[in-house]
Amino acid sequence: MELLARAQQLQAEGCDVIHMEVGEPDFPTPEPVVEAAQAFIKTGRVHYTPALGMPELREAISAFYAEHLDAKVSADRIVVTAGASGALLLAVAALTDPGNEWLLSDPGYPCNRQFVQAFGGRVKSLPVKAQAAYQPDLSQVEDAWSADTKAVLIASPSNPTGTLIDDERLDGLVAITRQRRACLVVDEIYQGLVYGRPAKSVLARHDEVLVVNSFSKYFGMTGWRLGWLVVPTMLTRHIEKLAQHLYIAPSTPAQHAALAAFSSDNLAILEQRRQLFGLRRDKLLAGLQGLGFRIDSKPEGAFYIYANSEHCASDSTELSRRLLEHSHVATTPGRDFGEYLAQQHLRLAYTMSEARIEEALDRIRLAL
Amino acid sequence: MELLARAQQLQAEGCDVIHMEVGEPDFPTPEPVVEAAQAFIKTGRVHYTPALGMPELREAISAFYAEHLDAKVSADRIVVTAGASGALLLAVAALTDPGNEWLLSDPGYPCNRQFVQAFGGRVKSLPVKAQAAYQPDLSQVEDAWSADTKAVLIASPSNPTGTLIDDERLDGLVAITRQRRACLVVDEIYQGLVYGRPAKSVLARHDEVLVVNSFSKYFGMTGWRLGWLVVPTMLTRHIEKLAQHLYIAPSTPAQHAALAAFSSDNLAILEQRRQLFGLRRDKLLAGLQGLGFRIDSKPEGAFYIYANSEHCASDSTELSRRLLEHSHVATTPGRDFGEYLAQQHLRLAYTMSEARIEEALDRIRLAL
Repeated sequence: MELLARAQQLQAEGCDVIHMEVGEPDFPTPEPVVEAAQAFIKTGRVHYTPALGMPELREAISAFYAEHLDAKVSADRIVVTAGASGALLLAVAALTDPGNEWLLSDPGYPCNRQFVQAFGGRVKSLPVKAQAAYQPDLSQVEDAWSADTKAVLIASPSNPTGTLIDDERLDGLVAITRQRRACLVVDEIYQGLVYGRPAKSVLARHDEVLVVNSFSKYFGMTGWRLGWLVVPTMLTRHIEKLAQHLYIAPSTPAQHAALAAFSSDNLAILEQRRQLFGLRRDKLLAGLQGLGFRIDSKPEGAFYIYANSEHCASDSTELSRRLLEHSHVATTPGRDFGEYLAQQHLRLAYTMSEARIEEALDRIRLAL
Repeated sequence: MELLARAQQLQAEGCDVIHMEVGEPDFPTPEPVVEAAQAFIKTGRVHYTPALGMPELREAISAFYAEHLDAKVSADRIVVTAGASGALLLAVAALTDPGNEWLLSDPGYPCNRQFVQAFGGRVKSLPVKAQAAYQPDLSQVEDAWSADTKAVLIASPSNPTGTLIDDERLDGLVAITRQRRACLVVDEIYQGLVYGRPAKSVLARHDEVLVVNSFSKYFGMTGWRLGWLVVPTMLTRHIEKLAQHLYIAPSTPAQHAALAAFSSDNLAILEQRRQLFGLRRDKLLAGLQGLGFRIDSKPEGAFYIYANSEHCASDSTELSRRLLEHSHVATTPGRDFGEYLAQQHLRLAYTMSEARIEEALDRIRLAL
């Protein structure tokens, strides 16, 4: 946050800052989505929708799972929310009583911890290793388990590492949580943004998990603030009540816009963008390796590289500061994602053009 | 909720239901707001804004307080949120640790209680009396106070009663909460919707309160899901961190739309609507009194009448059910707003035309 503020300050002073610290695609909202929003807003009839979202949007999401991800997810298990944040909020609110414990990956998305704590829950970190694709080992989860453990949260593709969970590990985590009457929550916010392999959802294999997703990343709709939560059937009533109480309804213009997100025109645009992201990843990955960074587990998705910087600098926070001040390249130090080997890592986002990535690599080379 | 579902079912079956149960104005989004949204969305650049909201929108809200409500509220105390729900969420998250206690009016907006409980807090109800304009007495607050009390929440104009808090009572509540190092939170979601007297904000008299507001009601922007929270200066850092963690940013299209909400063109439209609401209130108030309902404290704002139905029926829930089934007039029984004298009261919203209100009154007459 401090580095983000400094990056913005430098930019305000006229510096040409390359923003590899923010998790926002550079693309505008796709044209079909813009047009759908325009057509709806023109009517002026921007009233509340049902708390769980417009039935036709929930059906559209359900159809997307069936057609593109080989997953049967009935619309009544899908809750439309104000961004993935709204989905995570619902999940944490539903599963957490004061004193309950969540197991979270370290490194991981930093806000997750805050959600759990805001609801009076406790967080136990699972230090995840590069050789395990930065996903928790089953034995780790078993060892960390306590009588208070209520949920395990994983992310695939993961932020900050871009790594995926494999089927075997996933099945194991589902078995452990089910057996102990706890819940597995899977952050699939970057679902669809995978390179060199087909997109997947854990919902193709399992019904008894909660899945957080978003229109922000793959669908390129960040500022619209729309996401969704998939819940097991037995939780739908409880979640509906919470949604009605905690946020009335998600944004109506965003929901109408999102209906166009699943059109074939739009999906073609998203596929083009995905391919561009893949090229950018390859460029940044090779470039960083050429500069002496080590990528200990290949990032297969999202738009981040979690680079081991120990051969370049002894402290990644210090390195991040140096890159910003001397090269005007903004990055995120590992410290923002946890404690485990945090000082040796840096997250870089490839949410800019290949030319811009090359420019960033040149600047980093000079700074090192 | 059960009655709401039944009302929707009847409507789906082709019945002409008059919806006096929902708190949503019948007006569309005002034209200047629609135009501003259209112009912005066309650019496609719908990216994240800062977590606290766009600086120019926070300035515009600050200017609105200065020009129309005689209140000095600097923009850095204003946090733009996903509806008033987002504002309430932030306030409760900021002020509540597990076991903390909130004092809430009974009758009151039912979700407030859920927010506090979701964050591990406890709720103590203050049964508020008609002769006190359904606002808590100072002695009530003092008697209910415990070592765990962290906040008192009032609403002015109140939902479900439409009543306002007077200056003297307000000053007393501020003094009590300040002295005991707790917070007074004021729900001003219906601010601007007052009839027969000028609109006011508690912020004209006090800086050390939290105020929840919304673009939904007075500004007629329900489906856009945009609100704001005003916080005392000493809480701004804490609230900013929470906002960054809990929801990233409010809707970007909604924020651009809301910038046009303060234009003189738009305020002229809102003033016309306010006058219409005033006429509707007068009509419904007189009509209900003519039917034998008692209005024990005159509603001065919002768009609700909290009618004492004890001369019409012994149980307002039963009456509400009867009115729906036999007259197709949907109302909300007092039970939805608390326990205190709930069985003797019914809330009716006047969010429809005068002709429609007359029709509703005719139907209720027949049912009684």
